[in-house]
Amino acid sequence: MPDTPGELYDPIRYTLGMGGKRVRPRLVEIACGMCGGNIDESVPAAVAIEALHNFTLIHDDIMDNADSRRGFMSVHKKWDLSTAILSGDALFAYSFSLLTHYSNSEKYDKKQITKLLQEFSNAAIIVCEGQARDLSFEQKNDVSLDEYIMMISQKTAALLKSAMIMGSIIAGADDNQIEHAGCIGLYAGLAFQIQDDLLDAIGDPEKFGKKVGGDIIEGKQTYLSILAKQVANEEDKILIMSLPGKPDITDQEVRTIIDLYKKYDVIENTSNEIATYYKKASDLLKNFPDSEYVHEIKALLNQLNVREN
Amino acid sequence: MPDTPGELYDPIRYTLGMGGKRVRPRLVEIACGMCGGNIDESVPAAVAIEALHNFTLIHDDIMDNADSRRGFMSVHKKWDLSTAILSGDALFAYSFSLLTHYSNSEKYDKKQITKLLQEFSNAAIIVCEGQARDLSFEQKNDVSLDEYIMMISQKTAALLKSAMIMGSIIAGADDNQIEHAGCIGLYAGLAFQIQDDLLDAIGDPEKFGKKVGGDIIEGKQTYLSILAKQVANEEDKILIMSLPGKPDITDQEVRTIIDLYKKYDVIENTSNEIATYYKKASDLLKNFPDSEYVHEIKALLNQLNVREN
Repeated sequence: MPDTPGELYDPIRYTLGMGGKRVRPRLVEIACGMCGGNIDESVPAAVAIEALHNFTLIHDDIMDNADSRRGFMSVHKKWDLSTAILSGDALFAYSFSLLTHYSNSEKYDKKQITKLLQEFSNAAIIVCEGQARDLSFEQKNDVSLDEYIMMISQKTAALLKSAMIMGSIIAGADDNQIEHAGCIGLYAGLAFQIQDDLLDAIGDPEKFGKKVGGDIIEGKQTYLSILAKQVANEEDKILIMSLPGKPDITDQEVRTIIDLYKKYDVIENTSNEIATYYKKASDLLKNFPDSEYVHEIKALLNQLNVREN
Repeated sequence: MPDTPGELYDPIRYTLGMGGKRVRPRLVEIACGMCGGNIDESVPAAVAIEALHNFTLIHDDIMDNADSRRGFMSVHKKWDLSTAILSGDALFAYSFSLLTHYSNSEKYDKKQITKLLQEFSNAAIIVCEGQARDLSFEQKNDVSLDEYIMMISQKTAALLKSAMIMGSIIAGADDNQIEHAGCIGLYAGLAFQIQDDLLDAIGDPEKFGKKVGGDIIEGKQTYLSILAKQVANEEDKILIMSLPGKPDITDQEVRTIIDLYKKYDVIENTSNEIATYYKKASDLLKNFPDSEYVHEIKALLNQLNVREN
């Protein structure tokens, strides 16, 4: 990546340097390894997926008016709006440029190259669709669970799915394996996002790294809040509709919402939903021969198999 | 393009429906035809270039806080900031997806596909660099002509250059022809942008479609304003530095600046600069066999060969 103009590339280096779990690029490598490929060959795609993800974070932070990200000031706060829009755009363009590695290499045929390009550009479009749906939820009081699952499957899970698909394409996997790998990524992504929603209500803040009840304080729609609205009686529903997002919400009121989640088995049912996706992903893993990569993705998935703590 | 979610795709359809001169996609076709290709084959690349251009317009309008574009409300004014960021992002992703046509077709080899991908992603990055430089000029009083040419070569001319390069790659042109075609696009782009600067000061508003002196009223740095600062005496330089962009600037003050441009031969020298780029582009055209496409690009270039009117 060039040095100048610094007003374009400094925010990109800053964002990429924030760290993060790097789950998506590792999934590209894991899928490649699971399908018998040389994981070194999956590195350009892994970097492209992580670059694409980081571009979406820069732009999402603008849309969500978020002040910070991973403990760092968000780009639009540290610099300004124009810098955040533009450095996100350039990072997006850079992510595409990395894929020329595959058309430029003798190891890949045009069918693989086409699949990689389609998968990557389609993932980018779908992530935008998911963010558009998420934004529309702010003005919508009657989001259904199906609509919510659709949104997170696009905004969050699509990129994990594409990471797995791209890794398996690079390994030269057949269409069946590619499909299985993609579904593992999709189910893992859904399970991770719903777990994120769950941990907001019941997680150990030490381990989770976020304030408990943050989604309730912000009034964010989550799997739990939508489910709770569906099953609560009229009196409790009024509390569930009115307390979250209230500007002066107290710790006691946050506690009230979490207690209502418990009263209506929302915590239990959410755990069950996570377990369902966990099982779907785990079952699909049986289609791959045993390897260190299968063990690694099992270990990743096992983080999901934690019930109410 | 899908219909839903409407909050993502409506602004894209709105922007693409605004019209515009469609110079960039036509240049893709012209370059393809000039190099002996079948121009129907260049259509996906032409659409991709126009989509990329329109994505930059949506985001540029946010950064420039522009209320309108081609007589329509800008997307961020008609909808909101988030919608404009996101629909721009999706249009950008869509533009890349169109290039899979070439990897998916039997007519193109991997070398051509690599060149197309590299050219397109590189163009997108360079346009971002140009916009970053342009934004940095707002805080800079001592922009040199070289810096200005560098900026417009990236922000404006790079995409015309890429349009020509992509058209010639698709036609199967050799590296020499591709290089010539790219340089024609670059020189034409520079000439068009500098002519745009010139017409702001001396153009016929009926023909030009913009208010004369708009750049002076906004205090925009242009080829003329930078050149004038370099050659004016101290007294006139103060006027040139202080009047443009003044909140309550009068028609008489705008006239004063244009008169100073005339006094210091800025108009004449700017015309000469345009003519130089026009000649460079025209000379390169001699490398292509006579055809309707060569005639068409000559006619386009001839619009540049208009001296002070």
